[in-house]
Amino acid sequence: MNDKKVFQGIIAYPITPFDQQERVNIPLFKLLIERLVLSGANGIAPLGSTGVMPYLDDEEKESVTEAALKQVNGRIPVLVGVSNLTTERTIYHAQFAEKAGADAVMIIPMSYWKLTDDEIFRHYDKVAASISIPVMAYNNPATGGIDMSAALLKRLLRIPNVTMIKESTGDVQRMHYLRRELGEEVAFYNGSNPLALAAFAAGAKGWCTAAPNLIPELNNGLYKAIRENQLQQAQDIFYRQFELLQFIVGKGLPRTIKAGLKILGVESGYLRSPLQPLTDADYQQLEKMLLAIR
Amino acid sequence: MNDKKVFQGIIAYPITPFDQQERVNIPLFKLLIERLVLSGANGIAPLGSTGVMPYLDDEEKESVTEAALKQVNGRIPVLVGVSNLTTERTIYHAQFAEKAGADAVMIIPMSYWKLTDDEIFRHYDKVAASISIPVMAYNNPATGGIDMSAALLKRLLRIPNVTMIKESTGDVQRMHYLRRELGEEVAFYNGSNPLALAAFAAGAKGWCTAAPNLIPELNNGLYKAIRENQLQQAQDIFYRQFELLQFIVGKGLPRTIKAGLKILGVESGYLRSPLQPLTDADYQQLEKMLLAIR
Amino acid sequence: MNDKKVFQGIIAYPITPFDQQERVNIPLFKLLIERLVLSGANGIAPLGSTGVMPYLDDEEKESVTEAALKQVNGRIPVLVGVSNLTTERTIYHAQFAEKAGADAVMIIPMSYWKLTDDEIFRHYDKVAASISIPVMAYNNPATGGIDMSAALLKRLLRIPNVTMIKESTGDVQRMHYLRRELGEEVAFYNGSNPLALAAFAAGAKGWCTAAPNLIPELNNGLYKAIRENQLQQAQDIFYRQFELLQFIVGKGLPRTIKAGLKILGVESGYLRSPLQPLTDADYQQLEKMLLAIR
Amino acid sequence: MNDKKVFQGIIAYPITPFDQQERVNIPLFKLLIERLVLSGANGIAPLGSTGVMPYLDDEEKESVTEAALKQVNGRIPVLVGVSNLTTERTIYHAQFAEKAGADAVMIIPMSYWKLTDDEIFRHYDKVAASISIPVMAYNNPATGGIDMSAALLKRLLRIPNVTMIKESTGDVQRMHYLRRELGEEVAFYNGSNPLALAAFAAGAKGWCTAAPNLIPELNNGLYKAIRENQLQQAQDIFYRQFELLQFIVGKGLPRTIKAGLKILGVESGYLRSPLQPLTDADYQQLEKMLLAIR
Repeated sequence: MNDKKVFQGIIAYPITPFDQQERVNIPLFKLLIERLVLSGANGIAPLGSTGVMPYLDDEEKESVTEAALKQVNGRIPVLVGVSNLTTERTIYHAQFAEKAGADAVMIIPMSYWKLTDDEIFRHYDKVAASISIPVMAYNNPATGGIDMSAALLKRLLRIPNVTMIKESTGDVQRMHYLRRELGEEVAFYNGSNPLALAAFAAGAKGWCTAAPNLIPELNNGLYKAIRENQLQQAQDIFYRQFELLQFIVGKGLPRTIKAGLKILGVESGYLRSPLQPLTDADYQQLEKMLLAIR
Repeated sequence: MNDKKVFQGIIAYPITPFDQQERVNIPLFKLLIERLVLSGANGIAPLGSTGVMPYLDDEEKESVTEAALKQVNGRIPVLVGVSNLTTERTIYHAQFAEKAGADAVMIIPMSYWKLTDDEIFRHYDKVAASISIPVMAYNNPATGGIDMSAALLKRLLRIPNVTMIKESTGDVQRMHYLRRELGEEVAFYNGSNPLALAAFAAGAKGWCTAAPNLIPELNNGLYKAIRENQLQQAQDIFYRQFELLQFIVGKGLPRTIKAGLKILGVESGYLRSPLQPLTDADYQQLEKMLLAIR
Repeated sequence: MNDKKVFQGIIAYPITPFDQQERVNIPLFKLLIERLVLSGANGIAPLGSTGVMPYLDDEEKESVTEAALKQVNGRIPVLVGVSNLTTERTIYHAQFAEKAGADAVMIIPMSYWKLTDDEIFRHYDKVAASISIPVMAYNNPATGGIDMSAALLKRLLRIPNVTMIKESTGDVQRMHYLRRELGEEVAFYNGSNPLALAAFAAGAKGWCTAAPNLIPELNNGLYKAIRENQLQQAQDIFYRQFELLQFIVGKGLPRTIKAGLKILGVESGYLRSPLQPLTDADYQQLEKMLLAIR
Repeated sequence: MNDKKVFQGIIAYPITPFDQQERVNIPLFKLLIERLVLSGANGIAPLGSTGVMPYLDDEEKESVTEAALKQVNGRIPVLVGVSNLTTERTIYHAQFAEKAGADAVMIIPMSYWKLTDDEIFRHYDKVAASISIPVMAYNNPATGGIDMSAALLKRLLRIPNVTMIKESTGDVQRMHYLRRELGEEVAFYNGSNPLALAAFAAGAKGWCTAAPNLIPELNNGLYKAIRENQLQQAQDIFYRQFELLQFIVGKGLPRTIKAGLKILGVESGYLRSPLQPLTDADYQQLEKMLLAIR
C-alpha cells in the first residue's frame, strides 16, 4: 500500500440509509459517503456495525460495497465489512470486496454458537487465503459475542495478510496488554468511541468511528492535538465530545447517527425493522447536545 | 389445540446434519427426527440453536421445516424456530412454518444492535399478527444477545397468540420470579439443560432439550419421577445425567450431539464451517461419559 | 454428635439487637433466641451475617456467644460464626465458641486482599486444628469477597473436622456441581433464601436462614413438604414466601428482619451505624407483604 | 493548605512490615517511609490497602500513624487511611490522625452489608464533621465491596471537607464520566496502577500507588513526561513499567511489594496470616521483571 492507502487517524463509518419501504437507498448512501470524505476523514468503512451489515442480504451488501468504492474513487482508503456467520459466505463477500476495489476488509468472528480458538483461526485463515488484500481482525464481544484473547490475536497475526487489529471492548488496559504482547509495530485501531482519548494516548494508530457523520471537526481535532503532543488541548477537545460519544454508543449508532443527521438538516432516510427511530425524548436530548457542542 | 398438540414434558431438539460438502442432508435429518419420535419425546423442535438455524439460508430452512413436519406426521406436536434479525424475514419464515403445518413457532429476539423493549414488542406483535398459530417467546441472552425483563415478557403475553415462555438463562431464581410475576397459568419451559431438576421442581411445564438425541431414557425418567412426586428418585436420575448435560452445553450442542450420535453408532453427518468437530480429547471424554451413563 | 446435635432442616439466624446508644442489648437478644427455638427451628446460628458479626468488637462477640448458648441450653444445636480477617483472631473466637459450648463453628474466608487457595486452606487448617468441634466452610462471594472453587472445597474437606459446606452464591447449578464433585455423603447447606426450593430439591441437608424470625411456619412447612415428597405442596408453600425472601435479601437482612419484627409487634432494638433502618417506603412494602402472607 | 500540602503527582503507599511473630515492626516501617520520601514521591499514604490497614487492631493503627507522621516530618503531605466498618470507629481513627498531624484522611465505605446511598452519605458526613482536615473519598468496589455512583460522589462533595476523589475501578471511562459530571475543578486521583497513563491523559491530578517502593524513577518519570506534554515519552516510560504494574496488582500489593523489596536488597519483614509470601515461581517472575526494568 502506498501512503494514501494506509489506515490511520479518523476512519469514518457511514450508516446504510433505507427508503420508506425499508429498501436500501443507494443514491442517498453515496451522498452520505461524499459528506464523510469532504469532512476530512482519513478512511471510510462501509458495512460496519453502523452500516447494519448483518441486516442486509447478499445483493444489498454488494450494491453498498460498489457504491462506496465508486463514490470514494481512491481519494482515501476504503475498508469493507465482510463478516458472516458461515465461512463460505465470508469468503464470498471478501472476494467480492477485493474485486470491487476495497483496500482492506474487516472481519469480526460472528457467533451464534461460541467458537473455539481453533475454529476462529481456521475461519480467518481460510478467508484471508482467498484474497490478497489486508484483513483487519475486529474484536467486539458486545456485538460479535466472542472475546478474542491476546494469544488468539497473536496467532491470527501469523496469517500473512492479517495486519491490523481493531479493539472495541472499551477497556484501555486490554489495549495496553495487547500492544505489549503483540509488539509496537502492530497496527492497532480503537473502535470504542468513549475511549478515543485514552486509546490515542496509549498509541492507537486510528479511531474507527461513526461520529464524523455529526462532529468531524471535533474528531479530527482530537487526532491533530495528539499528533502535535498537545495533551491539554486533546483533553479539552475530548471532554467537549465525550457526552455525545457516550450517547451515540449507548442508544445505538444506526438510530443516533440517523437522528443526528436529521437534526443537522441532512437527509438520512429510514431504518430497517426491528430497528426503530430514537424516541422523542432521546431525539430532543441529542438535539440539545449537538447544538451545545457546535 | 387438542391434548395431542399441547407442549409439555420433554421437547426434543434435533441437529441439522450436513454432507461432506456442507450441504443440508435431508434424508439423514428425517432419520434423526424419527429416532427422537420413537424415543418417547413429547414434542419436536426443528431449527432451534441445536439445529444451527442461523447458519442456514432461506431455502434450507424451508426444506428442514417441511421434512420435520412430514416425518413427524402429527404423532407429537412440532415447534419450529423462525427467528431472524429482521422483522420481514421473521414474518416470512413464521408464515411458511404455519402453512407447512407447524403447531407453534419459537422466536428469540436476535440482536446485533441491542433492541429496545418497544422494538422487541413491535417485532413480536407484527410477527404474531401475521400467523394464527401460537408463539413461544424465547429468552436466551447467551445466544440471542438480549435479556428480556419480566416486565417485557408480561407485555409480550398480552399479544393474543404469544402463549408460551422459554427461559434459558440458567438461573432458577429468574424462573421463580417470572412465574410469580406472570402467574401460574402461563406455560413456562426450561431451556437450560443443567437446570432441569430445579426448573421442574419450580413448576416448569416442559424441558426444551437436545439431550434426547443421546439419553432419552434419563430425560424421560426425570420427567416421570417429577410427575409422580418421587423427589428422591428425580434427584438420583438427575445427578446421573448432570455431568453430561453440563458437558454438552459447555462444548456446544451441535458439536457434542453430532459426536454423541457417532459414539452411539448413529450416522450424524458433518458440521458447517466455521463449526468444527469436537477435539479428540473432548470426544473421548464424551465417549467415557456416555458409556458410564447407559 | 448424637442426633440432637446434627444440623439439618431449618437453621435459624438471629439478629443482634442494639440499644439507642448502639450498644449490644443482650437481654433482648436472649428473647429473640427463645422465640426462634420455640418457632420450631432445627438449629440456631448466632453471629452470622444477619447478626452483623463483623461490626462487633471481641468482647461483644463473646457476650453474644455466651448468651445464645445459655439461652438455647442444649435444646437444639448451635452453630457460632467466628470468621475474622486474620487467622489469629479467627482461632481466638473459634476456641472461645468451643469452650462456651458451641456444637460447631461457621467460617467464611473474609477477604480484603483476595486470598490464594493455599492461604485459604492454611487458614482453615490452622483454625480447625485449634478446636475439636466441627467446622462449616461457608462460601458467599457477595459478602466475603472470595468465591471458593469446587476443587478448593474438596481440599478443605480433607481437614478432619471440616465436615459441612454452606453455599450462598444463589446458583443451583453450583450446588449440583459441588454435590457431584464432593459426593452425596457431604453435608450441604443452602444459604441463599430465594433458592430454598431448588436447593432442597437438589438434596441440600439444611437451609440457613433469617426468615424464621418472621415466617417460621412457611419455612418449616417447606422443609416438611420436601421430606414428605409432596412436590406440589412444596411449590405452593415456596411461592407464598418467595417474594418476601427476595425482599429481605435484597434490602439487607439486619434491616429487614428488625423492621419485620417491629411490624409483628416484637421489640427488635436499634441498628449500629452506618446501617440505618429501612426507609418508610420499604417498611410499608414489607408490612403489606407480611400481612398478606400470614 | 499551602502548596507543600497539596496532594498531586505521585502519592506513595508504604507496606506495613511485621516481625516473625506477626507483630508490627515500627522501626522497619520508618525506614521504608524514609526510602519513599527520598525517592521523590509527592505524598505519602500510610494505612492504605497496601498497608493492610484492615488487618491491624486499633493500637497498631495508632502506632503506624504516629510513626509515619514523625518520620515524614512535614517534608511532603501525608494522607492517612482511617476506614472502618462502623461509623464510630471511623470517627475515632479520623480524629486520631488529625491530632497526630495528618494533612488529610482517606475513607472507603467498607461494607459487609451493602450500604445504601443514604447510609454512605451519613457515614461520610458524620466522620467529616468530626474533623477539620480534608477527606479523600475512595471508590474501589474490588476491595471495599461498594461501587459509589457519580451521583453519590457528587453528593459527597457537598460535604465541606470532602474535597478529593480517588477512583480505583480501573475503567478510564468512569474517570471521564466523573470528571464531566463533577467538574474539572474537583481533584481526581487514580488508584489503579495499570491505568496510570490513561488517567493522567484524562486529567487526573495524582496517582496513588505502591509502585514507588520498587520503581520510583519510572513512576516519577511518567508524571514528568505528562506535565511536559511529552506524550510519546510518556507512552515509552509507561509501557516499560506496565507489565510490572499489572503483576503487582494481580498478585496482591502487600505480597509483591514485600517480595520486590527483598529482591532489591531492602529488608521488608513478614506478612500477617492468612496473607502468605509469593510462591517461588511468582517470586522468580517478579525478580526477572525487576531486573529487566531497571
